[in-house]
Amino acid sequence: MFNKILIANRGEIAVRIIRAARELGIETVAIYSEADKDALHVALADEAICVGPARATDSYLNMNNILEAAIATGAQAIHPGFGFLSENSKFVGLCEEMNIKFIGPSAEVMDSMGDKINARDRMRKAGVPVTPGSEGEVYTTDEALAIANEIGYPIMLKASAGGGGKGIRKVSSAEELIPAFEAATAEAKASFGNGAMFIERMIYPARHIEVQILGDSQGNVIHLGERDCSLQRNNQKVLEESPSVAVGASLREKITSAAVMAAEAVGYENAGTIEFLLDEASGNFYFMEMNTRVQVEHPVSEFVSGVDIVKEQIRIANGEELSVKQEDVHFKGHAIECRINAENPKFNFAPSPGKIQSLYLPSGGVGLRVDSAMYAGYTIPPYYDSMIAKVIVHGENRFEALMKMQRALMEFDVEGLTTNIDFQLELISDPHVIAGDYNTGFLGETFLPEYLKED
Amino acid sequence: MFNKILIANRGEIAVRIIRAARELGIETVAIYSEADKDALHVALADEAICVGPARATDSYLNMNNILEAAIATGAQAIHPGFGFLSENSKFVGLCEEMNIKFIGPSAEVMDSMGDKINARDRMRKAGVPVTPGSEGEVYTTDEALAIANEIGYPIMLKASAGGGGKGIRKVSSAEELIPAFEAATAEAKASFGNGAMFIERMIYPARHIEVQILGDSQGNVIHLGERDCSLQRNNQKVLEESPSVAVGASLREKITSAAVMAAEAVGYENAGTIEFLLDEASGNFYFMEMNTRVQVEHPVSEFVSGVDIVKEQIRIANGEELSVKQEDVHFKGHAIECRINAENPKFNFAPSPGKIQSLYLPSGGVGLRVDSAMYAGYTIPPYYDSMIAKVIVHGENRFEALMKMQRALMEFDVEGLTTNIDFQLELISDPHVIAGDYNTGFLGETFLPEYLKED
Repeated sequence: MFNKILIANRGEIAVRIIRAARELGIETVAIYSEADKDALHVALADEAICVGPARATDSYLNMNNILEAAIATGAQAIHPGFGFLSENSKFVGLCEEMNIKFIGPSAEVMDSMGDKINARDRMRKAGVPVTPGSEGEVYTTDEALAIANEIGYPIMLKASAGGGGKGIRKVSSAEELIPAFEAATAEAKASFGNGAMFIERMIYPARHIEVQILGDSQGNVIHLGERDCSLQRNNQKVLEESPSVAVGASLREKITSAAVMAAEAVGYENAGTIEFLLDEASGNFYFMEMNTRVQVEHPVSEFVSGVDIVKEQIRIANGEELSVKQEDVHFKGHAIECRINAENPKFNFAPSPGKIQSLYLPSGGVGLRVDSAMYAGYTIPPYYDSMIAKVIVHGENRFEALMKMQRALMEFDVEGLTTNIDFQLELISDPHVIAGDYNTGFLGETFLPEYLKED
Repeated sequence: MFNKILIANRGEIAVRIIRAARELGIETVAIYSEADKDALHVALADEAICVGPARATDSYLNMNNILEAAIATGAQAIHPGFGFLSENSKFVGLCEEMNIKFIGPSAEVMDSMGDKINARDRMRKAGVPVTPGSEGEVYTTDEALAIANEIGYPIMLKASAGGGGKGIRKVSSAEELIPAFEAATAEAKASFGNGAMFIERMIYPARHIEVQILGDSQGNVIHLGERDCSLQRNNQKVLEESPSVAVGASLREKITSAAVMAAEAVGYENAGTIEFLLDEASGNFYFMEMNTRVQVEHPVSEFVSGVDIVKEQIRIANGEELSVKQEDVHFKGHAIECRINAENPKFNFAPSPGKIQSLYLPSGGVGLRVDSAMYAGYTIPPYYDSMIAKVIVHGENRFEALMKMQRALMEFDVEGLTTNIDFQLELISDPHVIAGDYNTGFLGETFLPEYLKED
């Protein structure tokens, strides 16, 4: 096993990884920006190295400094967490060159799943359902019109090289198509130097259902069930749960099999997530994308499956076989995660960094977990993500899990910051959420307007 | 289900019960002494009533005031926790008279298991192994000599009405017996107004193995496996784990069956624990006593069985059937609990109450739970038990659980008090403890002298 690993991240996920490594008897090296010298991940790691100024591009995205830190400390592997360099295949390649094990898939697999048209193509060939749409790059309005006529409106136009919401248009009719295509392809050319587009049928209403998978270097792939992440605001997940209310036994068998097939098709190694859109009415689901890293919401799968995903990631990177076979994964109960952010839901969710004057994290009892990098007296820097904690609960059933979440959120007390705790409390008290009756549009289109109307 | 219950306790167990009740949708009433007005259980409960001055006899043992509080607030049931009134059958009788449900067994069952000779007798008749010894009360040295000759030395002399270590003598030979008996019976007469003694063969070396049981009012009894509580100091448990390294599959079957048989024999209702002494060499085990309440160490059984014992207690008291059948209890992994006390292990474990200047409770990751009533700024009153937290971990196996405990204890940071955290860290790092090679004498006779020799 590795003696020492470097964690190329910050915040709760860095702390999560340090804890897992320590439990495996592995020493840890934290990296930090100048803004993060008082961060918990720095205090908890065995060693810590400053890799640059506050701005992430200068520190947490600074590949040279991070690799130098790994070499200087003798770290044998790097865990990227999520965000930052976690899906950067160039960084993975540099790790490979330096003979430092990147805890994740190979650069090649990462690249092939990062390219959206390529990923769709590979999935289609592997027999995984993808949304009806173009089979390659689309350059002209004539091609676009022909494809749209075939698959039917509404459609999504997406830049092949896209990301960050650039070069994307929703199109409801043929009349809208030509101007939308021209605008999107121009935007794509300006943003990515590449105007190639692809076209997908828009699936709406839909549920965002994703499947956690784990693959080892021996070629074994298992899944840890599905997560329902449909409660989103601007494509940001707010609350996740497993299992999904919308997924029955037969659909579960199909969607998890498709995810395993997808991972097998690309020879996937380490933890990954296959995201699908589920059309609840028909029961059809469509491959959306693969995330080639651990996800924020991984704890809900850990609770229902009993598998420690981060420890598995480290063991897999070390060349070990998966510690469990699919038939030994026994799903139990229901898990829910609420993301707690330093933000003001009443003011367009504006981030509210600041100093934590006092803190009481919910704790104790059966089936509660709080992953956080907060401590009393800590000042949350304004430079990074606003997520400050994840509250995860596990109940015998969904109702018990909701009751536990309510109990936990009621105990949660942070002084000095504005948070979305009350927003989450209202969300889990909403009759639709209690009934499990929601889709990806529910939070933004139904819940939020009502919430904002109050007082 | 009850709408409202009163929790007749304080500290972490009161908080534990409030959390369980809240998760069941039940309102809670806390009671508190004048010394406890800032305690966490008071802050977390829906209502709180002061029942008297700091001294426990005036408040947490003040039956009239507690019953009045229950009546005044309309509480339909009382959860006694452990200690205080939890094994006081007079209090149970008063609750019954007032038509307030006591969350525990009936006064009659409590009485019959509280009387040691009677309990031994009932267990013997039920076919549960008891230590070889007298079959009833012993009043004279002649009787004592005859019994001791039959069972063999060493023996324990114990006051029939005993408690608190009064009227107990260890006797190694016939020469020691007569003076020891005379001294013990005189002490018993003076302390309890009753000089009756009983005699048991002393089982040493032994492991303290106890079995958690749950019985409902329909007569169903299940067990939640055994706990090994052999790491003790002056009969105070320090670290508990489940399963026991000393208990293999066949012994487990025998000892858990004996425990279920014991509970069935007395028609036991609610949560209880049957304590045994295990002679590891022979594999023989002997009934020691039954605790007719929830125990401090109940979370280790919750982790390995997945059953929420406190919620079951409330449901059982409400007349519901057990939520699980024995065949549906699937034991998984290994759990360990360390009791964290405000005390100075280097100074004869002297209690060290005081103000918590700052606090970081271990948290996050898979399989960690901290039950505590501490918060930053809280002043621990000097009047009660010195236990301030329980750290409980759950691993795939014992080694992983030990690693998790180490990680958790290293994170634990309390400023302002002296605690036994470092003592516990050394204990779990001891080669005997790592190997699971310990008995009830190990901590006091082997580990502690070495520990005290350091620096």
